[in-house]
Amino acid sequence: LRHSLAHLLAAAVMELWPDTKRTIGPAIENGFYYDFEFVEAITEKDLKKIEKKMRDLLPKWESFEKSEVNKKEALKVFESNEFKKELIEEFAEEGQKLTLYKSGNFIDLCRGGHVDNPSKEIDRKAFKLTHIAGAYWRGDSKKPQLTRIYGVAFKTPEQLQEHLERMQRAEKFNHKKLGEEMELFAQFEQVGKGLIVWLPKGEILRREIEKLAIEIEEKAGYKRVTTPLLAKKQLFEQSGHLPYYADSMYPPMVMDDGEYYLKAMNCPLHHLIFSKGVRSYKELPLRLAEYGIVHRNELSGTLNGLLRVRGMNQNDAHIYCTKDQMGQEIESVLSMIKEYFELFGLKDYYFRLSLGDPEEKDKFIEEPESWAFSEDILRKLLVKLDFKFVEAKGEAAFYGPKIDVQFKNVFGREETMSTVQLDFIAKDRFTLHYDDDKGKQNGEVFVIHRAPLSTHERFIAFLIEHYAGRFPLWLNPVGVKVMTVTDDNKAFAEDVVNKIKAAGVRVELDDRSESIGKKVRTAIKEKANYMITIGDKEVEKKTLAVRDREGKVEFGVDLKSFVKKLAEELSSRKC
Amino acid sequence: LRHSLAHLLAAAVMELWPDTKRTIGPAIENGFYYDFEFVEAITEKDLKKIEKKMRDLLPKWESFEKSEVNKKEALKVFESNEFKKELIEEFAEEGQKLTLYKSGNFIDLCRGGHVDNPSKEIDRKAFKLTHIAGAYWRGDSKKPQLTRIYGVAFKTPEQLQEHLERMQRAEKFNHKKLGEEMELFAQFEQVGKGLIVWLPKGEILRREIEKLAIEIEEKAGYKRVTTPLLAKKQLFEQSGHLPYYADSMYPPMVMDDGEYYLKAMNCPLHHLIFSKGVRSYKELPLRLAEYGIVHRNELSGTLNGLLRVRGMNQNDAHIYCTKDQMGQEIESVLSMIKEYFELFGLKDYYFRLSLGDPEEKDKFIEEPESWAFSEDILRKLLVKLDFKFVEAKGEAAFYGPKIDVQFKNVFGREETMSTVQLDFIAKDRFTLHYDDDKGKQNGEVFVIHRAPLSTHERFIAFLIEHYAGRFPLWLNPVGVKVMTVTDDNKAFAEDVVNKIKAAGVRVELDDRSESIGKKVRTAIKEKANYMITIGDKEVEKKTLAVRDREGKVEFGVDLKSFVKKLAEELSSRKC
Repeated sequence: LRHSLAHLLAAAVMELWPDTKRTIGPAIENGFYYDFEFVEAITEKDLKKIEKKMRDLLPKWESFEKSEVNKKEALKVFESNEFKKELIEEFAEEGQKLTLYKSGNFIDLCRGGHVDNPSKEIDRKAFKLTHIAGAYWRGDSKKPQLTRIYGVAFKTPEQLQEHLERMQRAEKFNHKKLGEEMELFAQFEQVGKGLIVWLPKGEILRREIEKLAIEIEEKAGYKRVTTPLLAKKQLFEQSGHLPYYADSMYPPMVMDDGEYYLKAMNCPLHHLIFSKGVRSYKELPLRLAEYGIVHRNELSGTLNGLLRVRGMNQNDAHIYCTKDQMGQEIESVLSMIKEYFELFGLKDYYFRLSLGDPEEKDKFIEEPESWAFSEDILRKLLVKLDFKFVEAKGEAAFYGPKIDVQFKNVFGREETMSTVQLDFIAKDRFTLHYDDDKGKQNGEVFVIHRAPLSTHERFIAFLIEHYAGRFPLWLNPVGVKVMTVTDDNKAFAEDVVNKIKAAGVRVELDDRSESIGKKVRTAIKEKANYMITIGDKEVEKKTLAVRDREGKVEFGVDLKSFVKKLAEELSSRKC
Repeated sequence: LRHSLAHLLAAAVMELWPDTKRTIGPAIENGFYYDFEFVEAITEKDLKKIEKKMRDLLPKWESFEKSEVNKKEALKVFESNEFKKELIEEFAEEGQKLTLYKSGNFIDLCRGGHVDNPSKEIDRKAFKLTHIAGAYWRGDSKKPQLTRIYGVAFKTPEQLQEHLERMQRAEKFNHKKLGEEMELFAQFEQVGKGLIVWLPKGEILRREIEKLAIEIEEKAGYKRVTTPLLAKKQLFEQSGHLPYYADSMYPPMVMDDGEYYLKAMNCPLHHLIFSKGVRSYKELPLRLAEYGIVHRNELSGTLNGLLRVRGMNQNDAHIYCTKDQMGQEIESVLSMIKEYFELFGLKDYYFRLSLGDPEEKDKFIEEPESWAFSEDILRKLLVKLDFKFVEAKGEAAFYGPKIDVQFKNVFGREETMSTVQLDFIAKDRFTLHYDDDKGKQNGEVFVIHRAPLSTHERFIAFLIEHYAGRFPLWLNPVGVKVMTVTDDNKAFAEDVVNKIKAAGVRVELDDRSESIGKKVRTAIKEKANYMITIGDKEVEKKTLAVRDREGKVEFGVDLKSFVKKLAEELSSRKC
């Protein structure tokens, strides 16, 4: 259905602007898109017109007629479209069959997969064009820039309506919108896309989450390190990231003593630390942790708020252990993940166990015993911990099996949040070894990569949407707002602020010469956990009028017991 | 004297290796150096031979004979030395007089400044060649690499001896040596020079210092931010750092949306934050703080431990305030610097007030009123606070006057530690302004740059040497070491460790099967503040045997009161 609509979209565009060059248009989750090279740029205002044309054409589309053609015939059909010609040449070279599909007057190069009769099977009220975006031909920034038109489509108008409403709700809680409103972070033209500037209030979120991670990791026996942001080419050759991963890294900087790359991952640096000096079995497991800053060269057009950035802080750690210790270490990491999720009140997730495939020898490092041993342990642990999980054969990393945690975000899209990975290759590339209890050198070092809290950027984006900006007290940049009714109430209000502050709670005073109504509206917009109004009555009685975020107001609250309650709510990190 | 010895050094080298090309050789603090291009590389072993030759030549050097020559004559003297010829061409072009000085058989191009009679005035036992190093011709890495020979020289052999002994002591406390021994930080060939890897124990120092700064800055009303590590070229053009500062920055990285530079300073990013949205006078002074990571392109040959690095964490903040607020803000910063120094027990420092010079219109931004007003305030504040200070006319930054804090390090060399700078240019480059109490836009924003704790790298280097590695309890990576005499003592030892840990003190257990003597030696090497021995007697009586770092041992110490004492020592950050 959605693929058929991509054809219909292209047909409508070609009728409206015959000089347009069309390229490709697949079905995607909930809808479809098609990429075009327009002679004159279109805007989102044109989408209505295109939609109307699609509906006009639809009744005449009674089938998709398939015809197989040879290269020469195919090239003739698309003789003025260099994009299609490039595809035809390529398919022919690969020995693929070339097939055309025709509906109404519209012919497209296509591998098939449509409804039989669009005019009957597509509901004219169950699709909608949503937006346009820039895209490069074949995703390559050196190639021409195209205009991508996105649409959504469902079987029934009711389903479409439901989807649009979910999107609207999601839009309201979008982290970019809330991040701007709540002054959490900013991006600047002069700084460039994908590089986040954390404003004072967003910085509080960052620090609180990092503090939590450090506390939990310290309890779990991790040791903290800080490694440089860049390193010589040699290091990334040794780790094997170059040349395979070079496209995802920033270009090198040539200095007087060699080429330097911004690191895209922390592992090689942690491996170097492990490899320094002789390690004794008594030092294992050695757990090195760092909220490491990595940079990745994403295409500027794909960058998106905090979700897709170029510079990020990763909740990273590497655990170096013996074969015997590996199971216990993985179990601790999985328990840690669970502890985090309970703390944040996250429920809608499941685990994905990605396995190797012994038949695909090119795709996975050949160490059959390690794979079998580890995969067995991972599976048993997930069962033992009673975690909901699926298995994905052949989806492991090149260097070992892994467990990812999958989440649904507010848009209903699935995302990977946490990850635990085994690495069988690091010990060879960095000649990792330790002296066992008999003083003998042992090279069988198991390496675990883990990032329960993902990156600050991705995790905070998720949290903003998860809480719809209504953060628990321990995270909220403005936990309590104290507001004066008149200037006469200022002295007591300041006293209240100081007592709350002394308990470690973030509190702000609003003593502007504004109406109390306006002050409350400001505080509601800032999503403070508690709003305290100080009027003459409160000054007189030395009590508080406290309004919570649900709008419930309590009068005559005792300051001391309120501060105590705040302190408890804060230290328990109640969500 | 020292300049004369540079001539003598060159003469000795030319006698020993006549094909060597000599370049330049100035006097420096405590000594002199001379740069050579050798045909075959020499080593430090050759220094003795050169020294002997210098002593052999000395008796024949009874004067420095001066002769003025024209360009042609000068070029003839140095016809086989392209370095000297380059200098001659340059001096001639600048219209400088060309003078030669001759002693013994040795002639050098020189501007003068020698002793009258070297053979009488130079004591043959009061100089010494110390080491060799690489250097580029004219300090330019694209030019030939030379060998620099360093020497020290004094009036008397006693002074030389005293200097050498000071150097030896300093060498013992050198931060590179202690940093390696105490496993604080490391550098790796594959990572590259000047990029510090902080090992777990060094990371503790970093975090404690950062924690201190955050506490003190929070108390002083600073707001924390985090800004990206790199930004587009446009930002550094706007700030004025490009093209003037480009050589000190890493080379740009070309991405699909423009050129990006690693930031060499945080200011432009903070200015952007200030410029976002409309600021009200009520928000001033706005103090934005960040332990910001900056990168500078130092020549690889000049990099030196933690003292000269390429990547560093700066204890940075920018204060945006009105003209009326500026004095109070500077005073607060100066008091904060004093608070830090008292905490660390630093005494041997003074302030340097660097002023502009209204006559040098090219060197300083023209805003006479701001200069006069600010310099007057800075001077009055230093007097008011009773700080020891010197004035340095014409030594201000281009954009405003500044106060630096000068220290002597263990080598006796003076270094700048903290800095407070006024900036009159930021408001124009970033169109900073605020709405005053009448709602009128005011562009007179005073900007203060300040970095009391310098960078983590420089400050920790300084602290390592200042404390000779014997850190106070709150900084020490291993505050307490608990050692068992036999395995039977383990249970109680673990109990002791847990109780100490619960008080927030860093404690380690040494329960190896080694003699107690060996365990104590390890703990002494690690410079633990307290060493606790647990033997059968302690287990029986449930008391401790505590040895402090001065070697004083106390038996029968009560655990509870010892933990209380530790907690107090920790929270007071006693030095």
